[in-house]
Formats: sequence, C-alpha cells, structure tokens
Amino acid sequence: MPVFLNSSDADFETRFRDFLGSKRESDVDVDAAVADILNDVQTRGDAAVIELTAKFDRLTLTPETLAFSAAEIDTAIATVPADEAAALELAAKRIRAYHEKQLPDDAWWTDETGAKLGWRWGAVEAAGLYVPGGLASYPSSVLMNAIPAQVAGVDNLVICAPTPDGKVNPLVLLAARLSGVETVYRIGGAQAIAAMAFGTETIAKVDTITGPGNAFVAAAKRRVYGRVGIDMIAGPSEILVIADKNNNPDWIAIDLLSQAEHDASAQSILITDDADFGVAVAEAVELRLETLERRDIARPSWADYGAVITVADLDQAAALSDRIAPEHLELCVADAENYAKKIRHAGAIFIGAWTPEAIGDYVGGPNHVLPTARSARFASGLSVLDFMKRTTLSMMTPAALSAIGPAAKTLATSESLEAHGLSVGARLDQLNEARDG
Amino acid sequence: MPVFLNSSDADFETRFRDFLGSKRESDVDVDAAVADILNDVQTRGDAAVIELTAKFDRLTLTPETLAFSAAEIDTAIATVPADEAAALELAAKRIRAYHEKQLPDDAWWTDETGAKLGWRWGAVEAAGLYVPGGLASYPSSVLMNAIPAQVAGVDNLVICAPTPDGKVNPLVLLAARLSGVETVYRIGGAQAIAAMAFGTETIAKVDTITGPGNAFVAAAKRRVYGRVGIDMIAGPSEILVIADKNNNPDWIAIDLLSQAEHDASAQSILITDDADFGVAVAEAVELRLETLERRDIARPSWADYGAVITVADLDQAAALSDRIAPEHLELCVADAENYAKKIRHAGAIFIGAWTPEAIGDYVGGPNHVLPTARSARFASGLSVLDFMKRTTLSMMTPAALSAIGPAAKTLATSESLEAHGLSVGARLDQLNEARDG
Repeated sequence: MPVFLNSSDADFETRFRDFLGSKRESDVDVDAAVADILNDVQTRGDAAVIELTAKFDRLTLTPETLAFSAAEIDTAIATVPADEAAALELAAKRIRAYHEKQLPDDAWWTDETGAKLGWRWGAVEAAGLYVPGGLASYPSSVLMNAIPAQVAGVDNLVICAPTPDGKVNPLVLLAARLSGVETVYRIGGAQAIAAMAFGTETIAKVDTITGPGNAFVAAAKRRVYGRVGIDMIAGPSEILVIADKNNNPDWIAIDLLSQAEHDASAQSILITDDADFGVAVAEAVELRLETLERRDIARPSWADYGAVITVADLDQAAALSDRIAPEHLELCVADAENYAKKIRHAGAIFIGAWTPEAIGDYVGGPNHVLPTARSARFASGLSVLDFMKRTTLSMMTPAALSAIGPAAKTLATSESLEAHGLSVGARLDQLNEARDG
Repeated sequence: MPVFLNSSDADFETRFRDFLGSKRESDVDVDAAVADILNDVQTRGDAAVIELTAKFDRLTLTPETLAFSAAEIDTAIATVPADEAAALELAAKRIRAYHEKQLPDDAWWTDETGAKLGWRWGAVEAAGLYVPGGLASYPSSVLMNAIPAQVAGVDNLVICAPTPDGKVNPLVLLAARLSGVETVYRIGGAQAIAAMAFGTETIAKVDTITGPGNAFVAAAKRRVYGRVGIDMIAGPSEILVIADKNNNPDWIAIDLLSQAEHDASAQSILITDDADFGVAVAEAVELRLETLERRDIARPSWADYGAVITVADLDQAAALSDRIAPEHLELCVADAENYAKKIRHAGAIFIGAWTPEAIGDYVGGPNHVLPTARSARFASGLSVLDFMKRTTLSMMTPAALSAIGPAAKTLATSESLEAHGLSVGARLDQLNEARDG
C-alpha cells in the first residue's frame, strides 16, 4: 500500500516530513572495495581490468578484445529491426536538435576603463560514457549521454558497457554509432571508471566521465571526481504527478508505474486536489499491476515508496512539489503552461496531460539524465555544458591599469601578499615615470 | 633551483612528462577523521560544532555566539581604513558587473511537430560560502564567492569563516556586507562543512557549498557532494607565463612570485622562446627573493616546483601550455589578443604585459576561484551558474504526440519497459479512436 496523505489532516506536516526524509538508498558500503579496484587498475592497467571483468562479468577478454571491433558492431547493428532503428534515429535527431540550442555563447567586451573582458567556452578533449549492463542497459541512455558530448565538440568519445556473459544489446551499439562513438569497451563497474580516469595500456585516459551506474560505479565516480570531471552521483529516481480530477485515472496510473517499473527503490507520487480522484488513480494502479510485465519490480516500489497526497488547492501542490524537488514532474492540470511557472525545483517538467514522462525518456528532446533524490534543489540534468569548460579572459590597457591597479595594490597589501602588489605596482611605476618624465 | 627545460634537448619529452606528473599535494589521509566529524555534527548538531571549534580554534562559543552579531560586524567594519574600504568597493562593483553578464537565458520554442520545448534557469535557495581562516583569510575570496551567488539570486547566503583564537579580519566582514551576506558563522574545518550540509539547531541546511579550504575541508566537501552541490575540490594552484624577450624580466619575475608566495606547494612556470630571457627572469626572481616578505613560502615553491622552459617558437609554447592546463595563464607576447586563440585549456587568461595575474585576483572582474592542478582540462572557474540549476520543459500537443509517440512506444517495448510504452500508447489509442470514430 502506498502512503495516503491529506493536507487537511492535523498530523500532515509531520507525516509529510517523515515521507520526505525516508531513505530509499541501501546503506551497503562498497567504498573500500572500490578503493582497492581503483588502485589495482591504476597500478596494473589492462591486466587488472581483464581479471576483474572475468571475475564480475564471467567474460574472458584480451587487450585486443577489450573493445568491440568495427566488424562486430556492424554485425550486431544488422540484427536491429527496421522499426527500432528508425525510432532510435528519430530520437537521436530530436535529442541533437534540443541540445544544439544549449551551446553557450562566448563574450568579449570593453568596459568603461578600456579593459577588455570576457570568456570563451571550449569542449573537453576526451569523454567517457558509462552505460550500465543487464537490466538497465538502455540504448536511449547512450543517446542521452553521447549526443550532448558530440554537440559540445568533444574530440574523443568512448563508451564502457559491461556485457555480462558476453551478452550485448545491439541497439546499444547502434545508439553509439548514431552518436558518433566508434569505441565501445565491453567492461563495467568500478574497473571501467578506473580505466577511463587513469588510462591503461589500451584505454586512453579521458577528461570527463558521465553516465549512471550501480553503487560500485557511483562510489568510483565520487573517488575520481577532481581528477576527471563527472556529471553527478545518481540515486534512486522519482516521478511526481500533479493532477486535477479532469484526468483519466488510468493514464495517471500508468505514468506513475512508468517510474515504478524501473527499480524497486524508485518513487512515484501523485498530488491531487481531489481525494476521490486520488483513490481512483490508486485503484487504476492496482488494476494495471495485475498484468504489468514488470509487476515484480513496480509493485514493491509503489507499495514501499508510492504516495497519494490530497491537497486543498493546486497552489499547495506546487509548494509541496518544491519541497520534494522531483526528478520528473508531470503537470496534468488546467492551463498547465502557466501553472508550470509556480514550480521552482524540478529536474524536468512535463506540461499537460498529452506529455507523459515517457516521451522525455526517448524522443522529446530534453535529456533524461536528471538530478535524483531531491538534488534538483541545486543540480541540473545532463547538458552540453557538462562536456565544456569556460576560460575567463581579461586584457588591461595602460589606462585601465592606471584606473584600477591602485585598488588592487591596496588590497594586496592589506592581504599581506607583497608580490601581488609589486606585480601591479612595478607597472604603475613605469606609467607614472612615463607621465612625469 | 627551479627546473630548466629546453625543448631542443633530446630528453625533453621525458623530462616534461616527469614534470607534468610530479605531485604537489601531500598524501595525508584525513578522510577517516573527516567521516567522524561529519557523523558527529549530523548526530549532535550545535554541541558538536561548538566542541570541535573549542578544540581546533581554541574558541569557546555558544549557540547564540556561533554567528557574529550585526553590532560586532558594525564595530569591526568601522576599523577598516578608508582606502581599503574604497578598494574593496571598487572590486565588488567590478566583480558584480562581470558576473551579471553570466546570467543565462531561458528558452521556450515550438518545434516542427508543434511540441513546445525549452528550459528555465533558477537560483538555489540557500548557499554556504567557506572562507578559510589564518594565512588564507582573504576578503577578496569572500567577494569572489558571494557576489556570483548574490547575482544568481540566491535567497539565503551564509559564510563560515573560522576565527582561530577569536581573531577575525575586519575586511572579511566588510566584504561579506558588500556582497549582501548578513550571517557569518565563526566556525571552520570539516565541522563547518557538515553544519552547512546537514544543518544544526542554529545553522540552517544549505543547498550548495563553495569556497576553498585545507585538506579537511576538501575531504568534507567530497563526502557531502550529492547531498549538496559543491563548486570543486581545490588543489595547489599554479601560474604559467608565456613571455617573449620583449618583456621586463623583473615584471615577469614578480608575476611568477605572486603565485609562489601563496603556498609552498604553488607552482610558477615560465615558457619563453628565448633562453637568455629565461635566465634573466630566473636571476630577477632570485634578486626579488632576497627581500620578499613571504620569501620563506615563495622560495621553496620556486625551488621545488618552479620551471623555466625554453621552446623553439611560441606555437610550441601554446601546445605545452595546453598540456599543463594552467589555472592562471599570462600571455606576454606580441599581439597577445590573437595569440590567446591558440590556447584551449586554461582557467583564466591574462592577455598582454599590462595584465598581471594579480589584477584578476582583485579588481579585474572575472572570478579568481579557478580550476587547479590541471583540471582546467574539464572544469571552469566559479560562476553564477554554480548557484543556479536548469529545469527542462516539454509540452506535447495531440498532434506532436501522434508524430513522435509511436517511436517512443517502439523504444519502450525494445527496452522491455511496458508501462513506459503504455503511458504513450493509451494516449495514442484515444487519439486514434477520436480520429476513426
């Protein structure tokens, strides 16, 4: 049973706080094991990666077979049904079009002192994309990681995707090709993160690593952060649907289940201003759960973490939503486009009942790699900017230095940084001499 | 003695690689101690913070005196000499003007299917700025952290600044006031990071923590990353000067020392296309070191980590610079503005001999919190974006869903995510029924 809350109940605030504070991540501490793996790969390179892949993925590799060959990729791609290939191509095209609009502008202007100031954006040279294996091996995730990197202008893009027992999803390889990635290593876990962060004899070191993964991958990314850039540390994901009574309860039920079917620790929440509608949705969820293919995952997610929250009005719904800061937010209310302006914290907003969240997972255009576990309060979804960095620029003239240099010298002296002051002062002295001489 | 390298030497590549790979960070592992401190503050709140401050800073606080009172701030600010206050105000004004140009644009457009797509940027609600105590307690760093947050539109800004033995730099408090920060806690170390990340009875939890610090602060930021946003994990900093022979060797020497005087593990590098000029700069450095106030810091930095690299031409200098990816890069060459275009990886570029790096530390306008230790390959300096996050937006119409929904359904089926497909399919079914009916 999901939790049912009503904002008119006396204990609502307490129960909502408990709900907000409830933990969905397991506490299993893999950090020590991950530290050993990182150290092993840093020290022994390919040999360590190959041994760990044999151990964890039951797959025997050599330095030559760490990556798929072009022929292997060709062969796998040839097996993809035409309708799936066409769907993936449409997704790639739409994701590319959206992310191209994210390319940031450079700037270079002259201020009132005559100083020129600005900045310039540029892509990282090499990026590594992690694609989980097994249940979560999603070709759509390949597109969502690789296309922003490609649009950013990254020179070298590689993918690490574990293939337990040698099994690979051909659509993952097609997605790689559609995103311009030629090198796909069949390795995973902390050893894949280590290989990309430190480099091995065969695998070149990258500058930035993105992509979701299990607890080992997350711990490895945290440890290499700073040595390389990373996108984020992903946690269990969630959907929040705000819906009024003028919705089909079954549509909302399926939308909630589309999150619940990902993972037993995913969270699906409905906020409505109509208690009867909330009950109707919960009943529709139960009905769908009777036949849903992934009911063994979706049912515990809904039972353990699901919630139906009834509020007095939709303003209250928006306020509660900001406290949840959901990864995905569906707004199935009247004039949803305007209502969206009430929301401050969310990874992605799906506006109106014709915009099920699943559209955003595949073909909408915006990225589906989004801040989880309330981190939309401070974090953004994956974007072109994750694969770029900004260099600031400044260029003084003698006149500009005369205007602002004395203040710099004063502050340097105040901070007891003599050489800082001297480096400005020596130049000011020459200007003064030239003027006075 | 700094290292002297010449690109025409047979062993140059080997020696340059060794130089690049040399480690300046100490290996002291404070992570276990930091984990204990975080846990203590999370569990016991104010009491833990107060005990740890008594232990590390020899300062006895109560919940009421954790923060400076407005009267204490007023009293301290009144002691600031007028010229220093004016200099700080000029710095604040220029930093604000630069960062206001960084405010990102929202977007909202209609694509060829009729779908509306876009994004919206917003500020985090609360940010905490860490300001180191002791030697590195710099009012300029307060401005560089707080003004971007203020420009971003952060609602609640607090500073944690340790005051060992109760000593505080009045300019730090003035800088806080100039940046709109009213709350300054006199706490530091991992306990301050913990207090801001978890919250205590007195100190409200923040969303994002920025600012440099020692090894304890860095380890604490790494551990709370994901629970809150952080700016970066700062390492020892460096300056690279590319200078031709048409420069005053003393100016370049002071510029190199302005980095070396920060920290014995700072690094100062000169690349020149004239070996004699390199020698002249090294001699000028020695001369300046005889009298420099902070020579006990600058001398070991220069001797242990300094370098003078002679190259065949300035194209080679730019290529080596990109391998170093310096935090600060000064370009003292002819037509420096055009030459800057050859550089791909640097935190900040100071263009031309009239732009000493120290200008950027105080009054230039760009941020002085920059990616260190080669991380300019993938990271950017602090900016308004560090205090903002982006929410993506999408809004389908029935026509748009008809156009792209079937591809989403195909991919969902291919990924064995039935509910994803159903959530699109149920809507498509209704559209088909309406059309056919």
